[in-house]
Amino acid sequence: MTRSDAATLEERLLAGDRRARARILTEVEVGSARGLEAMRVLYPKTGRAQTIGITGSPGAGKSTVTNALAKEYRARDRSVGIVAVDPSSPFTQGAILGDRVRMQELTADKGVFMRSLASRGSLGGLSEGSMDVILVLDAFGKDVILIETVGAGQDEVEIAGTAQTTLLINTPGMGDDIQAMKAGIMEIANVLAVNKADLPGADIVVSQLSALLSLASGAAWDPPIVKMIATEGEGIRETADACDRHHAYLLESGEMAAVERGRARRQIVALARTQLLSRLVQDSGGEERLGELVAAVAEREVDPHTAVERWLHPS
Amino acid sequence: MTRSDAATLEERLLAGDRRARARILTEVEVGSARGLEAMRVLYPKTGRAQTIGITGSPGAGKSTVTNALAKEYRARDRSVGIVAVDPSSPFTQGAILGDRVRMQELTADKGVFMRSLASRGSLGGLSEGSMDVILVLDAFGKDVILIETVGAGQDEVEIAGTAQTTLLINTPGMGDDIQAMKAGIMEIANVLAVNKADLPGADIVVSQLSALLSLASGAAWDPPIVKMIATEGEGIRETADACDRHHAYLLESGEMAAVERGRARRQIVALARTQLLSRLVQDSGGEERLGELVAAVAEREVDPHTAVERWLHPS
Repeated sequence: MTRSDAATLEERLLAGDRRARARILTEVEVGSARGLEAMRVLYPKTGRAQTIGITGSPGAGKSTVTNALAKEYRARDRSVGIVAVDPSSPFTQGAILGDRVRMQELTADKGVFMRSLASRGSLGGLSEGSMDVILVLDAFGKDVILIETVGAGQDEVEIAGTAQTTLLINTPGMGDDIQAMKAGIMEIANVLAVNKADLPGADIVVSQLSALLSLASGAAWDPPIVKMIATEGEGIRETADACDRHHAYLLESGEMAAVERGRARRQIVALARTQLLSRLVQDSGGEERLGELVAAVAEREVDPHTAVERWLHPS
Repeated sequence: MTRSDAATLEERLLAGDRRARARILTEVEVGSARGLEAMRVLYPKTGRAQTIGITGSPGAGKSTVTNALAKEYRARDRSVGIVAVDPSSPFTQGAILGDRVRMQELTADKGVFMRSLASRGSLGGLSEGSMDVILVLDAFGKDVILIETVGAGQDEVEIAGTAQTTLLINTPGMGDDIQAMKAGIMEIANVLAVNKADLPGADIVVSQLSALLSLASGAAWDPPIVKMIATEGEGIRETADACDRHHAYLLESGEMAAVERGRARRQIVALARTQLLSRLVQDSGGEERLGELVAAVAEREVDPHTAVERWLHPS
């Protein structure tokens, strides 16, 4: 190795240094000044990676699909980053536990890097950190970044705005058609997979999904439906193909620019939101003032809207 | 009826007038000035209702459980409000569809009022409107308010902060123990139900849940685990009993005050966040200025953090 000691962390990361990557990821995740500096330097080097968000309800097999896709892309000689977003769980330490098991399987391959992130959990949706982590892996040169989330709520809508392609994993027996419609993430899915396709009812789910898709009138991209048995690797090649076709479509149609703007807007708004709130807390008398307002509302001396009015416009 | 025409909307709502309730709910949901005024008047009259959040993954049977619990509480001669929070779905119009089917079953009973709300969907989590709708039903005099959400993500964490009691619906075959742990909502559940208890694997889920709960060291409230077959009404009485026991526990232990403060804090912070952001957009040159920053970030002329810095502190 001829690595110069004078090389910056960022230069080392861009040259493929894993220790520099680890260091920068940590700084970025905690949002330190060094992390912000790194983002400033690295950001112009991003935008090359293909990003795929993997979503679906718990039990749909998202982790299995993610691992299988990682292997499939490695077999295609593309480097892979995995960002798994778990809800923060101080009680079960879910992120750490899940991670450990999966690392055992994947760490053998140096072309796959996995990072498990706790979503902020308090009031935030997808954490700022996770957006930056994706960008760092992009700058590092990962060809494909798989972003897997837990659950089927707001986080998934956030992910859809972050990833270029959203893969929605369905399973047989997930509930009746009303359930499927209520999922509310149909309209953000670019590729639909029906996992556990060996279970009874798989074809019913496929036709329900087709019927739902047919309601979408004349969109330029027609989301394909792929059957898979992820645990046996069946249908994984077809799913990767479908994701790649969607990626090619985004590039050819020019829609990629809109996807990029959507991602940028989401991150800007999320960052501004957080900073505005912490500035308000600071400027208005800190946590103490907020605590007073909370107590007044909890004791019904004042309604929440009036309390916020007083917080934002102190007389 | 001796209703005076001079009575305000709020007075009429407090006297049990359903038309006044409908009118106020609409104003509150759109966040109009009239709605804010109504919240100011009604808020001191809230705090009497028992609120139960019902959560779990899609397909767990949340709607069925919610309906069954509504009937159970009605049989106990308690009035019931249901607030169903669906992810916004312009494509499938999920909220409306699901609502229609359920209304058919429940509208016969005037003691049950159901409102389906679309969660904001864009960048918000649980909508402000849904918090106010719960408060309006509380002021109207509903004894029990059931708050049902779709999905298992951020929205559920929000709901946990809004409802006094959180009921988590599990099902057999939802995935291995890692999946269960990753759900990350274990620590916010006060009552655990295993629905579809006639399916194979129900006892396995029960023991997995017990094992997880045993990790929680010495909490004062020990969440009970109830088996149910909601479609046949089995286990519903026991579930309502468990929810009522938790409610009594909150009151007797004095923990209810902390629950109330948590709810107040959540609503205050959510409202402030939204208002700060819209004020920033307005003061900084409107959507146009935001659009410029988004374009600059999308084209990688500037990184997201620097863009936000410029937005918040224009030089």
